[in-house]
Amino acid sequence: MTVEQAQREVLSRVQPLGSETVGISCALYRTLAVPITCDLDYPPFDRSVMDGFAVRSADVRETPVTLRVVGQIPAGQITTQRLGAGEAMQINTGAAIPSGADAVVRVEVTEPVDDGRSVLISESVSTGKFISRRGAHAQAGDVALKAGTLITPSEIAVATTAGGAELTVYCRPKVAVLATGNELVDVDTTPVGAQIRNSNQYSLCDLIRTSQADPVSLGTVGDDRDALRAKIEEGLEDDVLCITGGISMGAFDFVPEVLEQCGVTFHVRKMSIKPGRPTIFGTTNRGTLVFALPGNPVSAFVGFEVLVRPALSALCGRSHIERPVKAILDGKLTATTNRRSYFPVSVHIDDDGAMVAKPLSWGGSGDPVGMGGADGFATRAAESPGAVEGDRVDVLLFGRW
Amino acid sequence: MTVEQAQREVLSRVQPLGSETVGISCALYRTLAVPITCDLDYPPFDRSVMDGFAVRSADVRETPVTLRVVGQIPAGQITTQRLGAGEAMQINTGAAIPSGADAVVRVEVTEPVDDGRSVLISESVSTGKFISRRGAHAQAGDVALKAGTLITPSEIAVATTAGGAELTVYCRPKVAVLATGNELVDVDTTPVGAQIRNSNQYSLCDLIRTSQADPVSLGTVGDDRDALRAKIEEGLEDDVLCITGGISMGAFDFVPEVLEQCGVTFHVRKMSIKPGRPTIFGTTNRGTLVFALPGNPVSAFVGFEVLVRPALSALCGRSHIERPVKAILDGKLTATTNRRSYFPVSVHIDDDGAMVAKPLSWGGSGDPVGMGGADGFATRAAESPGAVEGDRVDVLLFGRW
Repeated sequence: MTVEQAQREVLSRVQPLGSETVGISCALYRTLAVPITCDLDYPPFDRSVMDGFAVRSADVRETPVTLRVVGQIPAGQITTQRLGAGEAMQINTGAAIPSGADAVVRVEVTEPVDDGRSVLISESVSTGKFISRRGAHAQAGDVALKAGTLITPSEIAVATTAGGAELTVYCRPKVAVLATGNELVDVDTTPVGAQIRNSNQYSLCDLIRTSQADPVSLGTVGDDRDALRAKIEEGLEDDVLCITGGISMGAFDFVPEVLEQCGVTFHVRKMSIKPGRPTIFGTTNRGTLVFALPGNPVSAFVGFEVLVRPALSALCGRSHIERPVKAILDGKLTATTNRRSYFPVSVHIDDDGAMVAKPLSWGGSGDPVGMGGADGFATRAAESPGAVEGDRVDVLLFGRW
Repeated sequence: MTVEQAQREVLSRVQPLGSETVGISCALYRTLAVPITCDLDYPPFDRSVMDGFAVRSADVRETPVTLRVVGQIPAGQITTQRLGAGEAMQINTGAAIPSGADAVVRVEVTEPVDDGRSVLISESVSTGKFISRRGAHAQAGDVALKAGTLITPSEIAVATTAGGAELTVYCRPKVAVLATGNELVDVDTTPVGAQIRNSNQYSLCDLIRTSQADPVSLGTVGDDRDALRAKIEEGLEDDVLCITGGISMGAFDFVPEVLEQCGVTFHVRKMSIKPGRPTIFGTTNRGTLVFALPGNPVSAFVGFEVLVRPALSALCGRSHIERPVKAILDGKLTATTNRRSYFPVSVHIDDDGAMVAKPLSWGGSGDPVGMGGADGFATRAAESPGAVEGDRVDVLLFGRW
């Protein structure tokens, strides 16, 4: 099964979770479940976009000209005073245009006269100049932000302006994380004999955090059917269960059989990728999504990026899958086998603004140390020739929020 | 002053904050203040990288050959049994190689014989095949992660493997945020007369969160010297103070004079950019960084991205400034004046993996609604001609963590 086929198997089975209401201060990187509509025109009144003087454009057709300063309009105030012929009012950026005025002259082209009782204007302005009209940017009832919009600081500015003190957003998925293997010990333990530390537990939890989901760590379980079953049943209570290890061809790889005993139906059993081939995707009757990833840390990373992250985005109400971006290769990649291959790379922007991908020196899928500095995977189709410095290659960047 | 000059003025005055120790589960997107060193070799023992059979390569030089299966080695166990001539042991990925064995045969090229008491091997292997030697990926004492490293899920895998249960990282900056202006009301209030909602307060707080810093909201203060002074003195207690509004040429723009009364020395007073020219950077004797940004929402965004974000990165121990990336323009940009200009754009990756920047229809720097969907700013040097569809333009992407 190709990656694209596997992704379709996953996304065809994912519905966004329910929604909840959050204050605007807690909405960063959430996804809108309900559109935000402007409650007022914006701007809500005709206002000046410059510091200067509100005038009648007819009075400044010929310049230089001196006008009487009959008032001052600070931002936030509506003046009842009407501007008459030969008059000007000092006005600040954002302040309301007084009735009678139809343009603003920038302070830079003016000079106070007679202690500021008058102003000498050296530049004429056309009607409407430096005035932002009521409703110029949005009208009451306009949809300011559509459902499905990811909330970044840009959208926060929009939502605030539209009066969105509270936003209805999709819930964050709860993702249970379970690492399997008799060889695993926790990070604070010193491995002895044939033990290694359980790195997947921590890297997966943070990969999940970068997917706007909440990890629920189930810790580590040995290669024991009963203990495995108990943990899996616990994990199936959440929206998603991610397991690492125990899915290969080893004599102690019990995960697939125990998942089936727990009522998980498999839709992806193997993918034509390297590393990560044995990756499993399944579902339960109550709709829990189950991903069983290889125990090798790099393989688990690949499985997460190609299947789990897109699934979590869809659960959060976002439909699109991050596309690989083209980058210039700063190094070499080996030719690929009959499977699409993934190579950890660091990425930076060069002086010309081009994205440059540098292959990391890693010791294969079992080498977590080689992942240090990885920003993504360079990915090459099956049966591709080797790639050399300067080639343009596809890079799947890791999500960054 | 150019943007580059202003950035030098800022960065030459920024030192990383102190450090603190956090558990590995809380280290995502923090910056290492102290390197992480491997406490053990990795792998810590010679191990199999395949599921199959541990053998003596000499025994399988000629194939097919049948070997006696004298044991089974699950991951996590050291077997004391020594492999003799003509013998094989079943072994799983990650399990320790038994003494006497010098290669692993993949299970795919084997067949059980005599109820599994023997195994028929159809492929010969060279010495060391499918064995990952102790210390192949890292040796005890190696620096696994350097100081200054940003911790992403990739580095979490490294840190865990190296035994980094706790990491010493730079502290997160505390950034006070103060919006000024008589015209401002809060998001949950309906503006009347010449009022507008205070969008900068919320968008700046989230821009700060995306910079790995903690915003401290000081709310809104009117154009009143004494009230302004009280709020500014409160904000100067934090690592950074960000003010919006009150810095232009209006009759009520008191911020610069009050900042000076509070002992702030200015290093940047104006920048040759559009929008955002009046942006101010200053410092106090105790080292607080002060940024006074224009009140117009888009201008405040530009000031944040070009000066504040680099400063916050440096406070967090990261030295580099994000470089603009080249993107293909999907739309038009107007010619620039004598100032470098910034245009809000949305960005996506096209089918060829190229970054495409689409200018947003915005109503100028006073239009927060026009920021919706902005992923960055297309930026053009002073005196640049207009840009048209298909041109390659520089895009400053907003930070995403």
